[in-house]
Amino acid sequence: MPRYKLTLEYDGTPFLGWQMQPLGPSVQGRLVDAVEKLCGVRPEVRGAGRTDAGVHALGQVAHVDLPKAYKPYVIREAINYHVRPDPIAVLDVVEVPETFDARFSAIKRHYLFRILARRAPPAIDKFRVWWVPQALDAERMKAAAPQLVGRHDFTTFRAAGCQAKSPVKTLERFDVSVVGEEIHVNASAQSFMHHQMRSMVGSLKLVGEGKWTAEDLKAALDARDRSRCGPVTPPSGLYLTKVDYPDGAF
Amino acid sequence: MPRYKLTLEYDGTPFLGWQMQPLGPSVQGRLVDAVEKLCGVRPEVRGAGRTDAGVHALGQVAHVDLPKAYKPYVIREAINYHVRPDPIAVLDVVEVPETFDARFSAIKRHYLFRILARRAPPAIDKFRVWWVPQALDAERMKAAAPQLVGRHDFTTFRAAGCQAKSPVKTLERFDVSVVGEEIHVNASAQSFMHHQMRSMVGSLKLVGEGKWTAEDLKAALDARDRSRCGPVTPPSGLYLTKVDYPDGAF
Repeated sequence: MPRYKLTLEYDGTPFLGWQMQPLGPSVQGRLVDAVEKLCGVRPEVRGAGRTDAGVHALGQVAHVDLPKAYKPYVIREAINYHVRPDPIAVLDVVEVPETFDARFSAIKRHYLFRILARRAPPAIDKFRVWWVPQALDAERMKAAAPQLVGRHDFTTFRAAGCQAKSPVKTLERFDVSVVGEEIHVNASAQSFMHHQMRSMVGSLKLVGEGKWTAEDLKAALDARDRSRCGPVTPPSGLYLTKVDYPDGAF
Repeated sequence: MPRYKLTLEYDGTPFLGWQMQPLGPSVQGRLVDAVEKLCGVRPEVRGAGRTDAGVHALGQVAHVDLPKAYKPYVIREAINYHVRPDPIAVLDVVEVPETFDARFSAIKRHYLFRILARRAPPAIDKFRVWWVPQALDAERMKAAAPQLVGRHDFTTFRAAGCQAKSPVKTLERFDVSVVGEEIHVNASAQSFMHHQMRSMVGSLKLVGEGKWTAEDLKAALDARDRSRCGPVTPPSGLYLTKVDYPDGAF
């Protein structure tokens, strides 16, 4: 059965998350439905990462096996047609060897977190940013963020129910920039644990508020204690932007 | 009666436009309702420009007279509270002299038009960009756009029902830039006629498609003939970004 790699954009707001489940709409479920309309069988669609309810993607990657070969653009057009009006778009489709696995072949994942820190609520970007109704000191956040970069035990920034085997991960990028009116936090790692990004950004926001110093952030990391984490952010500001695979391997 | 200048952001998607009318929701109508809840009387709220249905604002300006004085932040907070859950936000309020008029005191208006030219539909920015499902040549558009800058008779780019006294206007800025995956068209003038921006961008898109040359765009302008205009764009990509007033005058 030919295997295809799908690159996906979606607005996570109306979904219970990536993963298919009986309680309501999921991105994975909608994709399975759309592919079934193309080829008549219910395929398995496997994603690089399970985004939570309300979390968005600019470049999620998934793979799917189809019962026969299609031209990649036919698959893209068919899914984009059948998922309407749900806010999911297939950006790109390529045929890959059956050794390609969207999740296990991935060597790096990239996330963006958008914060709108101002008194007035967002009218244009409601559900697309985390609205913080007071000013944040982006310079303090910039200075503190790099302390989380590197190989650490991230127990502090890991959801209670996280199923990762080890809390030790290497965070390759974690930095803050000001883009127009927003504060952006960019992060990259081979893998992230459940709620890790939202836990790190929620703690970094305390630095921006002046409630924590940069040293407090480092101490929270070093404590390896979930109770030392700042409040986890809402999902609305989080975007899975890109997933990397080995060059030329597929 | 004290007069206040309001700076406003809104998502135009759910509204029939800026202007109050009996057939459905308008931005002006929602603001009048919200101010009435604050001060008990139905005020007049006058805007710098009447945005059409589906057109957005990042910096619309309006003025309102209130029966008594309030601290500006109280007005901002009260309106933002009472307009919920509509996608309207008051960004700023300042008290102004009664000679200030949001429309007639304005010396320049700035618009942004966002085009997403790609095969896959927008999942994140549906209703916030104009989706053009094929590639456009931004360099051709960049080269052609400046021909519309200057003092011209813009009859070609004016809606049939436009009520402006004269079609002769000075377009101070009209340029194209590539921002990430999008093509942005920025325009500035003291005033714009009805559908002028959407008519100019719709014609410029023909240049980006290769259907028109830069000379065709100029010839369409020079013809002063509405039938020579390209197809008017949908409203979803258009943003009123800023309105300028004389320095220090208010």
